[in-house]
Amino acid sequence: MDKLLFTPGPLTTSKTVKEAMLHDYGSRDTTFVNLVKEIRTQLPLLGHVSKETGYETVIMQGSGTFGVESVISSAVPKTGKLLIAINGAYGHRIANIASIHNIPYSTLVRGEDQLISPQDIETELAQNTYTHLAVIHCETTSGVINPVTEIGAVAAKHKLTYIVDSMSAFGAVPVDIARAQIHFLVSSSNKCIEGVPGFSFIIAQAEKLQLCKGIADTLTLDLHAQWLALEKDGQFRFTPPTHALLAFRQALRELDEEGGVAARSQRYQQNCNVLAAGMKALGFKEYLPEEIRGYIINTYLYPQSANFNFTEFYNQLNNRGFVIYPGKLTQADCFRVGNIGRIHTTDIEALLKAIGEVKAGMGF
Amino acid sequence: MDKLLFTPGPLTTSKTVKEAMLHDYGSRDTTFVNLVKEIRTQLPLLGHVSKETGYETVIMQGSGTFGVESVISSAVPKTGKLLIAINGAYGHRIANIASIHNIPYSTLVRGEDQLISPQDIETELAQNTYTHLAVIHCETTSGVINPVTEIGAVAAKHKLTYIVDSMSAFGAVPVDIARAQIHFLVSSSNKCIEGVPGFSFIIAQAEKLQLCKGIADTLTLDLHAQWLALEKDGQFRFTPPTHALLAFRQALRELDEEGGVAARSQRYQQNCNVLAAGMKALGFKEYLPEEIRGYIINTYLYPQSANFNFTEFYNQLNNRGFVIYPGKLTQADCFRVGNIGRIHTTDIEALLKAIGEVKAGMGF
Repeated sequence: MDKLLFTPGPLTTSKTVKEAMLHDYGSRDTTFVNLVKEIRTQLPLLGHVSKETGYETVIMQGSGTFGVESVISSAVPKTGKLLIAINGAYGHRIANIASIHNIPYSTLVRGEDQLISPQDIETELAQNTYTHLAVIHCETTSGVINPVTEIGAVAAKHKLTYIVDSMSAFGAVPVDIARAQIHFLVSSSNKCIEGVPGFSFIIAQAEKLQLCKGIADTLTLDLHAQWLALEKDGQFRFTPPTHALLAFRQALRELDEEGGVAARSQRYQQNCNVLAAGMKALGFKEYLPEEIRGYIINTYLYPQSANFNFTEFYNQLNNRGFVIYPGKLTQADCFRVGNIGRIHTTDIEALLKAIGEVKAGMGF
Repeated sequence: MDKLLFTPGPLTTSKTVKEAMLHDYGSRDTTFVNLVKEIRTQLPLLGHVSKETGYETVIMQGSGTFGVESVISSAVPKTGKLLIAINGAYGHRIANIASIHNIPYSTLVRGEDQLISPQDIETELAQNTYTHLAVIHCETTSGVINPVTEIGAVAAKHKLTYIVDSMSAFGAVPVDIARAQIHFLVSSSNKCIEGVPGFSFIIAQAEKLQLCKGIADTLTLDLHAQWLALEKDGQFRFTPPTHALLAFRQALRELDEEGGVAARSQRYQQNCNVLAAGMKALGFKEYLPEEIRGYIINTYLYPQSANFNFTEFYNQLNNRGFVIYPGKLTQADCFRVGNIGRIHTTDIEALLKAIGEVKAGMGF
């Protein structure tokens, strides 16, 4: 029996998702090409868009960050200017990517315990000129979920190309990509769709994707070239992670069987509610105020006790079969517990019981 | 029953390699960190080097080309000059990478049916100044195996940093990395070690790897930064393909059980011998002259008959459960048959029988 993963990915996935990987397919063979086609057709529907409504889906090998770097370096020309709204580590990572690629950019930085507000964006856009805006959907650093639809309205008013890193949100936090006026949405295989790690994917408005031609400064991360190849004959430019894609197709089918994004969102919210109530009863304090707290991952402050030691706490839970996640905040000592993956409220209850036992044993 | 893959990867892998993927591990958890450590310790031994003898192993998400781009863009400074020896598509791909990254380079181009000879390299190095040399080990375009050890002696004489793309060779074509004076060797998970696709790996001389600091012009493909992170705490900078790594550890163990590189090399050579004899008996002509033919993949010219049609030939074999590979030569119409993966001479014989039947049916 594997340990249960209360992390932001890789996640606990279903047995059937993993069993889908028990096959070897040739990457240029029709069976596999059809599988890629199915994935590229089904994925954008989760965001209420499709090829027919003018959106394209590109799969990119590597982790989510490979997908983000692909978009930033392929979509923002050196003559453009990117505004990056930051309230956590993943926003800073986009700034790092822009810096490395010599892309002109500015940042709008808020606290790790604050939302990015549409008003803040509006104020900045009224004062300075930009061509592109990048925002993190669920900032996994704290778990805050930024209001990407409302921010999209502001971006559209100023005619910006709008990039959303929806890594740990897409598939469980409802979004209408067209209504939110998002031009590039990036996510990855091992998050809320509950596949295994191995690739990222980009849902892009076709018109904006066409404009990426010739911008990229790499071979492998060239979003436009990757898209062209997939369109030409359904094949990847470079060997795809066939097994991870097999798992992902199965994961998409299981998401559909569960009732789609709405049902998954509900399950994760139930997980979150049980977790929050249980942790509160155990005396743990949430880092985020309740009104801006998301349901993907919860951040807890270290208990103020000399008897608390995170490594010991982590290891004891680990020995009991529960994997939690270290903190990433710059502003406070904390740890995180994810609510996503093939995890149900019974699993959260088992985790809470274990946390209670470890707490009693450690005496904090 | 999956079709048998006679391709250069993804390959037919063992049932046990695939079954190793039936587990979810946290990427920051000790169990997984130890797995990565085991892989990074075992891999260089296949090339007769180790950390103790001054070599480091870096794993990079994405396909083999991601690994090659990582090395070229991280190891060759803009003040350097790279000589790329080309006798097929993968050599040209390195030139493409160098060009995209504005790395000064020249090419030494030979025919797709010719070896890269040490003498040719020597002549070029005597006439022009370079800092780096890149060569393809097994050029999968034709199947030719370039003499990387002899070329390494020439490179060392001229004090060049020597990069070898050993994608479809490492693990089955014996190489002593130190003796061949290779500084960066790149290969991938889904080739001769018989894992599944998902990542590439780089075995690098530590001194040369240190010099990569600050050269890369991307975040994700920065070889030096990826290495530093793996060294610091055994963790990847960005979510690793945990399942592909589980499969790879199992594949490494099975390579060892088979008898290591020597035994695998022998099995592939036997596959190749049975294939070559059988195809000859069926009237097919090899593209490469026998003296420079490798044993990883064989290239066959299209039969000169109006009744031969590759798509039809491919599909009929596919329907019988055998997946062959299209050609990639610029100089001749051909198709390819791979000898690598969990494939034995009995499988080659079954393929030959099917080819014989299809040939008789099509009447070419």
